[in-house]
Amino acid sequence: MIGLSSESSVSGIPFRKIVKLFLLSVLIAAAGFAPTAAAQERSGKYTIVIHGGAGTISESMPESVKAAYYASLKKALGIGREVLAGGGTSMQAVEKVLRYFETDPKFNAGIGAVFTSAGKHELDAAIMDGATLKCGAVAGVEHVAHPITLAKLVMEKTPHILLAYQGADAFAVKMGMKPVPNSYFDTPQRKSELEMWMKQIKSHDHGTVGCVCLDEYGNLAAGTSTGGLTGKLPGRIGDSPLVGDGTYANNQTCAVSGTGIGEEYMRNAVGFNINALMAYKGMSLKDAVHHIIHDVLKPGDGGVIAVDRKGDYAMDFNTTGMFRGVANSDGLFEIRIWKDK
Amino acid sequence: MIGLSSESSVSGIPFRKIVKLFLLSVLIAAAGFAPTAAAQERSGKYTIVIHGGAGTISESMPESVKAAYYASLKKALGIGREVLAGGGTSMQAVEKVLRYFETDPKFNAGIGAVFTSAGKHELDAAIMDGATLKCGAVAGVEHVAHPITLAKLVMEKTPHILLAYQGADAFAVKMGMKPVPNSYFDTPQRKSELEMWMKQIKSHDHGTVGCVCLDEYGNLAAGTSTGGLTGKLPGRIGDSPLVGDGTYANNQTCAVSGTGIGEEYMRNAVGFNINALMAYKGMSLKDAVHHIIHDVLKPGDGGVIAVDRKGDYAMDFNTTGMFRGVANSDGLFEIRIWKDK
Repeated sequence: MIGLSSESSVSGIPFRKIVKLFLLSVLIAAAGFAPTAAAQERSGKYTIVIHGGAGTISESMPESVKAAYYASLKKALGIGREVLAGGGTSMQAVEKVLRYFETDPKFNAGIGAVFTSAGKHELDAAIMDGATLKCGAVAGVEHVAHPITLAKLVMEKTPHILLAYQGADAFAVKMGMKPVPNSYFDTPQRKSELEMWMKQIKSHDHGTVGCVCLDEYGNLAAGTSTGGLTGKLPGRIGDSPLVGDGTYANNQTCAVSGTGIGEEYMRNAVGFNINALMAYKGMSLKDAVHHIIHDVLKPGDGGVIAVDRKGDYAMDFNTTGMFRGVANSDGLFEIRIWKDK
Repeated sequence: MIGLSSESSVSGIPFRKIVKLFLLSVLIAAAGFAPTAAAQERSGKYTIVIHGGAGTISESMPESVKAAYYASLKKALGIGREVLAGGGTSMQAVEKVLRYFETDPKFNAGIGAVFTSAGKHELDAAIMDGATLKCGAVAGVEHVAHPITLAKLVMEKTPHILLAYQGADAFAVKMGMKPVPNSYFDTPQRKSELEMWMKQIKSHDHGTVGCVCLDEYGNLAAGTSTGGLTGKLPGRIGDSPLVGDGTYANNQTCAVSGTGIGEEYMRNAVGFNINALMAYKGMSLKDAVHHIIHDVLKPGDGGVIAVDRKGDYAMDFNTTGMFRGVANSDGLFEIRIWKDK
């Protein structure tokens, strides 16, 4: 007789094991459906903050240049808002916004990346999912049109977080990405900035791009993409692709993307630091960001954008300006370069 | 008449300016002599902690192998203690200990580094000065016998913190380091570990090395050197060369070196996190380290060594063992591999 005692069996498999396998498969199925289930619980609330770099940005730039920057920021912010308003995730919005910036030659990411001291481009990017703390990053890629997407693939397809240089470019090919020549990233503006750097004339090499979001499912995400610093030594990795430095997201606290003198952001673990001030000291997002930008970093170092789980946001900097924007589900849609405009 | 009024002048230079210049030169001289002055104020108290990696370390290893490990740890600890006892700095001790480990084939740093999935060695190292928060790091170097020394040169000779891959190897040559062939790092043990990895047999690839010190001048320093993980993808950068992750030092709190699954150390910013728990939550060093190792990281992830400004230390791990040792100016000199031996 086949009963239900713990010693029963079907085809020689102990019943206890069958129950375990059944429970396990239920669990696996539940886990598999979890994102969909969560995707149905939309709060109707989202926030997106973007930046296009901080630095010495002259207010006397030609009106046409100003207008072009405002237009690009508006476009990028609109792209991200559309993803979030349509029920997309914060990770999707971050990736899509940064992919746009990587094609806009005005910003120091993808096309328009600055030149190294050797006259080439070495691109860095990172993305982090605040819900799971999963993250991916690439540094020093030379032939990848969209470093932010490659960073996401490192997260999804490898046991690693950070791949760099030739290994990262080779991984991109393995993932089916068509390599672009390094000159794909060239722009006349960055070329002239390198020439100025060679003459030891300080030029503006800002233009790192970043995006942080809270989506309708209560999940935070952060991403950053950059060409680094004009005249950087070949092989130099800055803060942008380093999770906890230029890029960080944690649903318990905040999502952060930084822009500025990368080494200062690394030394002070800016992204993780803002999270730690909130988690360990109970600071608000705005206070934590203010403390890091104005008390820990030095004037001229740069800025950060950040958003927390409630949708509160910060866009703070200790430079003359930061290309930035914020939008949310309450209808806010704001673009700024300098303090008040 | 030449008087001493504020309007007086010598050779046309206003007297006020001369006084200012004099005061400035006194300040510059004082700053220049500061390290020497500090170097004369020896407290007589120092602490050094070392590790040679954490992981699954079988207690049933042959007695001769055990003895060889104990001997190497004793030697490394002795080298560091000698530097500190002789009035050397924590930075000097860290570098010298790690240089020793980089020549010992039993450890996964320098000679004895593990193989990547492509059958090569890519070495990572970082060093950080807790007094100044200055730091330097290299990742993916293939021809540098002493990555820890190259990391220190990045700190001293460039405006950057992290140089990677070919750029880092080229910088080494520029610094006068004689390149070694990549096969310089080969050992039969690591070769067989790669072969096991290829057959998907889990082998022990532990052996990252680290050192943290408090010197007689009250300064903390930390350093870590590693070959990474057996079978890692080419281009993979782990936590060791990332300041705030596997390596961190800050005179206000602690010096930390980690060893384990690097990605988990990066995701949780282990080094900076221990510092933040102390600075922001007022935790003791031991409690902060315990919390990270046993509550934040998962069993099997790895271990850390740490020392604080008072000379208190921690050596904690969530694996079966961690090669480690501690010595201080009170005569402590202890070598351990497993919990109590």
